Amino acid sequence: MSSTSAAGSIGCGVIGTGYMGACHAQALIGVGHAFEPALRPRLEMVADVSPAGAEAARARFGFARATTDWRDLVADPEVELVSITTPNILHKEMALAALAAGKHVWCEKPLALTAADAAELMVAAEAAGTTTLVGYNYLRSPAVAFAKKLVAEGELGAVTQFRAIFDEDFMGPAAFPFSWRCEVDKAGTGALGDMGSHLVNLAHYLVGPIAEVSAGLATAIPEREDALGQLRRVENDDVSEVLVRFANGALGHLGCSRIAWGRKNGLDFELYGRNGGLRFTQERFNEIQLFKPSTRTDDNGFRTILTGPPHPPFGRFTPGWGHGLGFNDLKVVEAAHLLESIASNQPAWPDFAEGQRVEAVCEAIALSAESRRWERVSS
Amino acid sequence: MSSTSAAGSIGCGVIGTGYMGACHAQALIGVGHAFEPALRPRLEMVADVSPAGAEAARARFGFARATTDWRDLVADPEVELVSITTPNILHKEMALAALAAGKHVWCEKPLALTAADAAELMVAAEAAGTTTLVGYNYLRSPAVAFAKKLVAEGELGAVTQFRAIFDEDFMGPAAFPFSWRCEVDKAGTGALGDMGSHLVNLAHYLVGPIAEVSAGLATAIPEREDALGQLRRVENDDVSEVLVRFANGALGHLGCSRIAWGRKNGLDFELYGRNGGLRFTQERFNEIQLFKPSTRTDDNGFRTILTGPPHPPFGRFTPGWGHGLGFNDLKVVEAAHLLESIASNQPAWPDFAEGQRVEAVCEAIALSAESRRWERVSS
Amino acid sequence: MSSTSAAGSIGCGVIGTGYMGACHAQALIGVGHAFEPALRPRLEMVADVSPAGAEAARARFGFARATTDWRDLVADPEVELVSITTPNILHKEMALAALAAGKHVWCEKPLALTAADAAELMVAAEAAGTTTLVGYNYLRSPAVAFAKKLVAEGELGAVTQFRAIFDEDFMGPAAFPFSWRCEVDKAGTGALGDMGSHLVNLAHYLVGPIAEVSAGLATAIPEREDALGQLRRVENDDVSEVLVRFANGALGHLGCSRIAWGRKNGLDFELYGRNGGLRFTQERFNEIQLFKPSTRTDDNGFRTILTGPPHPPFGRFTPGWGHGLGFNDLKVVEAAHLLESIASNQPAWPDFAEGQRVEAVCEAIALSAESRRWERVSS
Amino acid sequence: MSSTSAAGSIGCGVIGTGYMGACHAQALIGVGHAFEPALRPRLEMVADVSPAGAEAARARFGFARATTDWRDLVADPEVELVSITTPNILHKEMALAALAAGKHVWCEKPLALTAADAAELMVAAEAAGTTTLVGYNYLRSPAVAFAKKLVAEGELGAVTQFRAIFDEDFMGPAAFPFSWRCEVDKAGTGALGDMGSHLVNLAHYLVGPIAEVSAGLATAIPEREDALGQLRRVENDDVSEVLVRFANGALGHLGCSRIAWGRKNGLDFELYGRNGGLRFTQERFNEIQLFKPSTRTDDNGFRTILTGPPHPPFGRFTPGWGHGLGFNDLKVVEAAHLLESIASNQPAWPDFAEGQRVEAVCEAIALSAESRRWERVSS
Repeated sequence: MSSTSAAGSIGCGVIGTGYMGACHAQALIGVGHAFEPALRPRLEMVADVSPAGAEAARARFGFARATTDWRDLVADPEVELVSITTPNILHKEMALAALAAGKHVWCEKPLALTAADAAELMVAAEAAGTTTLVGYNYLRSPAVAFAKKLVAEGELGAVTQFRAIFDEDFMGPAAFPFSWRCEVDKAGTGALGDMGSHLVNLAHYLVGPIAEVSAGLATAIPEREDALGQLRRVENDDVSEVLVRFANGALGHLGCSRIAWGRKNGLDFELYGRNGGLRFTQERFNEIQLFKPSTRTDDNGFRTILTGPPHPPFGRFTPGWGHGLGFNDLKVVEAAHLLESIASNQPAWPDFAEGQRVEAVCEAIALSAESRRWERVSS
Repeated sequence: MSSTSAAGSIGCGVIGTGYMGACHAQALIGVGHAFEPALRPRLEMVADVSPAGAEAARARFGFARATTDWRDLVADPEVELVSITTPNILHKEMALAALAAGKHVWCEKPLALTAADAAELMVAAEAAGTTTLVGYNYLRSPAVAFAKKLVAEGELGAVTQFRAIFDEDFMGPAAFPFSWRCEVDKAGTGALGDMGSHLVNLAHYLVGPIAEVSAGLATAIPEREDALGQLRRVENDDVSEVLVRFANGALGHLGCSRIAWGRKNGLDFELYGRNGGLRFTQERFNEIQLFKPSTRTDDNGFRTILTGPPHPPFGRFTPGWGHGLGFNDLKVVEAAHLLESIASNQPAWPDFAEGQRVEAVCEAIALSAESRRWERVSS
Repeated sequence: MSSTSAAGSIGCGVIGTGYMGACHAQALIGVGHAFEPALRPRLEMVADVSPAGAEAARARFGFARATTDWRDLVADPEVELVSITTPNILHKEMALAALAAGKHVWCEKPLALTAADAAELMVAAEAAGTTTLVGYNYLRSPAVAFAKKLVAEGELGAVTQFRAIFDEDFMGPAAFPFSWRCEVDKAGTGALGDMGSHLVNLAHYLVGPIAEVSAGLATAIPEREDALGQLRRVENDDVSEVLVRFANGALGHLGCSRIAWGRKNGLDFELYGRNGGLRFTQERFNEIQLFKPSTRTDDNGFRTILTGPPHPPFGRFTPGWGHGLGFNDLKVVEAAHLLESIASNQPAWPDFAEGQRVEAVCEAIALSAESRRWERVSS
Repeated sequence: MSSTSAAGSIGCGVIGTGYMGACHAQALIGVGHAFEPALRPRLEMVADVSPAGAEAARARFGFARATTDWRDLVADPEVELVSITTPNILHKEMALAALAAGKHVWCEKPLALTAADAAELMVAAEAAGTTTLVGYNYLRSPAVAFAKKLVAEGELGAVTQFRAIFDEDFMGPAAFPFSWRCEVDKAGTGALGDMGSHLVNLAHYLVGPIAEVSAGLATAIPEREDALGQLRRVENDDVSEVLVRFANGALGHLGCSRIAWGRKNGLDFELYGRNGGLRFTQERFNEIQLFKPSTRTDDNGFRTILTGPPHPPFGRFTPGWGHGLGFNDLKVVEAAHLLESIASNQPAWPDFAEGQRVEAVCEAIALSAESRRWERVSS
């Protein structure tokens, strides 16, 4: 159990100072202003392998201390919550150390490169008894929270169908270089692990557990030049297409691509229930389309609902209906949920157990692509 | 071989006087005005089991003769082209008779209820040597023709991904009654046969042959009341989700639903190639979204292209860019293609051979849903 | 009074064989199939100054006779309804002759080049006692008819605001040549007369009489080369912006442009009442956006209503919700309204009296642009 | 002249602790992280009439000191930059005092209730020689900045047309109570002053000075109940419609409404030049529509450009193209511009001189609504 947090504050340490490191730091600062949480973050320490990088981040965000050794940070008695924002391959070791030290852990996705590693982390988290959170950062927008609420309230009836895609085009150009992203031992799967895992988590959130999957993967651009001009074979998927059947019987499709020209943050979903439907795209995440049959026959249509104060936690950011949240605000919402979970000693979500379930589904997907048949998700 | 069509006209007979019968009749009249084809249709005969229905259709559209026996129509020496717009279960017998009589045949989809029946029709069509066309009516809009042109020209590069859905909600209401649509021996599959077959044909058109499939089907509303108030078990799929791998290596997804609340004509597709992408929905079929990378980094985006005279055959209907075609106009385009094929003695498309290939894919899909594994499409 | 139309049919003559001539001919044919009107059109005669043009149109559409002298057509005893689709400058003389001969008249817009000429026509129409219709062809789409119905039913409350634009870009290119469109004595005003008149008519239809106007006009491209390469001064407006106050107190804006890059059929409107609002664009005229406040606070939004059978006369064309009408279908609806008005001896709308009111508003607009102040519309 | 700001920081004081007060405080904190400006804000003091409110804001945002007397704040030697976020009626007195004390001033819009007051402030700002900024907060989004860049680069050619509306519906409900917003002496004009002033500023930004205006105003809901249940006469405009002619000859329309059902942040504009066009809505402010004629005729269309790192200052917030900024981020951008202007001793924009020009245009609009004629903007 954690020794958390007398007196309304919590000491925070952030490992990593790249984009996600900055995002965590800003979220930990911003959550204090927007949510006024019971536990207010104190920025105790930041870690980066580069001394200059660590010091720059310290100065920029106002951390009390900087270090080049993340183990110092994990061991620091003032640090109660550890943010892990380093390359994926490092998540496991750092999270295990933080849990062993009795810290709360906020780890960027994916939790680990394999379901087995994720399971090890889940077990360690249970043993530590601290609060964990995996950074699936699209879940907590006002629009997606509203979708969840409608489903939970039964407004749409039992869910019958769910389709979601996550398309981007950053690897569309043939000239995009070969990198660690293209290597199985460094990245695991390609589009599936990077973007598909968001879809699995979202499907869990809105519909429930996935029972079985059938998949096809494709490496559409089989070779790319590396930084030295060498043509290298791409080892993982550019495109993944997956059928899913949920435990509650709903049927679905998840698709993702890193070469879908023109899509920049193309996480779109559509969900249908016995009594209505929803359509959404992350590229316009401040709105959502809702269909409910009307009482007259001539005025039925999908409503474009602009989010506003009636869609929590929108009002934490602005009272201005339709004024819009930004991506960084979603990370603030994530931080608020984490701090509230710690303060109330309730599990956060998606916690390490959910992180493990996501990896288990991804593993079943990869297996299905090999076996060429439906595969059950191990539980 | 047909004795077709001296002197610039062609005698036409239409079997069936429901919506599609009226649609064929109007298309055969309208094509004369819009396209001024080498072979101009003469409306010779209409057939309907009801004497009143047959006579009403004759008077409404100006057919020369009416009959209650479709065999009279097939046998009529003035009738050179036979339109078949009757219930699906009757297509096979009528088409075989028309082909045996040496007629050209324009048959509504699906060509037949099974792939074996479709194959029989394909063989009969080859033997007859006449021109055949299956009424997959979304293919020939200016926007879809433009998509086809871009792909064929290589503007988008080799196709890597194709996703298409066809969603409607007419069976969304639980109160929608049990009917022949819900019975396997009368309708075959449900959403798959009714709507999915359009997707297969469209996929063939834009991408090429489908080599293998993996599928899941679901009957989301398992029971419905029939007209007598009896609760009956629904025998076929409300929702179908299918993965496809094309012969050229592209990976894809096809999904369809007859219970997707809010969708009315929800045939949407997205197609990505090595150099660009397309997005389209039939609900706004007078426009299409095209993405091609730009020369500067800041002005990239999907273009919403409104169809107009540069998108044949738009200009046959109006010179007014953006003025829009209607669904019935698409049937006129179909008729124009058929007449031109007959006149030039070239195969039309989708002909009976393509109708058979569509059914073969649908059969592989149904098989995969049973076998729970990827299945190759037989050729 | 007209001697109209024993025995369920009406003899029709069409003057002009350009796009609008073909459009009238096809509408007169198509209305018989789609609406089965009490009076079914007989295509008696077509007139064109060119003998070849007249004969070609006769053969294409099946008129009984062709002529090169429109006076023959007007005088023909079998012709009961005269369509006028010639250049604007000829409308007046032809319409007066047709009315004098006791014919019904379907005249393309604008009714005349000046309000005084339009008034003369209105008076002549009253004297003739026949049915007249001016071809403002966007009014009768299912979506706009639905808008009208909602307003008339009071669903939106008293109208408070109305804004409409009609933008196209056909004269956007500087290379677009100088033509009669640029000359006051041949075209009258520019964008105002060509496109703005549609907006005035639409405003009358949806909101009611316009009491006063304030306007600004601009010739943004002051000179263009004519066909001989001579640089000529453009005499009329590329862009018109108009404020309107309706008799019922609603405030509005009408704007139009023939140089608005990217717009092809950009007739957009928004209408707000005390209880709701509507948004529409002709570029997607098979749908309309409706907002009515909901009973819960979180599910409010504009509904994108796809038109279908509940939106008359959609069902006359197809039972398929969301399948869409085309521009030519709107002309069929117009013909149906005209024939029904003739058969029931009720005024059609927009008749010549409305055509005159539109020109009176346009004249007030042009006057305001000169006087630089609000001007009342003369009645 | 200001004694600003040795050593890379600047002392800030914020008057007002409502939504805009919080917004300024958060922007002053956030700008440090996102922009790492040469002058980094120190939060020195916050002022609120309520002691509890002042202290709460101090604690929430980490100001060094709190006061209930704004004059203390203005006089405080550590405060170099004064933010004014109080009710509009107080702006003038506070800004004059701050300028007199040699401070930089960031004042929420409107600068003052009359053009004369705004002129007084402009003169005082010139005399003080400090940097001023008025909080027109929609200007600096990446999309609008991109529009500005395209216009400035000449990519669209000379501007010919500009239309903008700003519609909201917060006063749509008849039950919305009578308040200070409805009284001329407390609010000045209604929709015009509140929302129209944004449009004027935006028009200045994108097109240039407005030379003359013609306007109509309407109070569509003439009476409302106040908090005591008394029916009171609404004194100012619910709806304003304005024609504008720019000094460069472009013609335009500005419209605004506080009763436009369904619109929440409906600041939409369209701008056309000789070579292209733009369309935008603040409700989707992370994207913009651009039309430029293409080299082929069939692939023209408005491009939906999702903003990303190529659209500064997007990249200051996230490297993730399409990830989106929020409304509060726009205030951070505003703060960054102000700090950079102070550091480089260049005028900020919109400064008090621009604030005065906006009020001068609004005054001409109100005058035109009275005089019922075009009025020149005084300069």
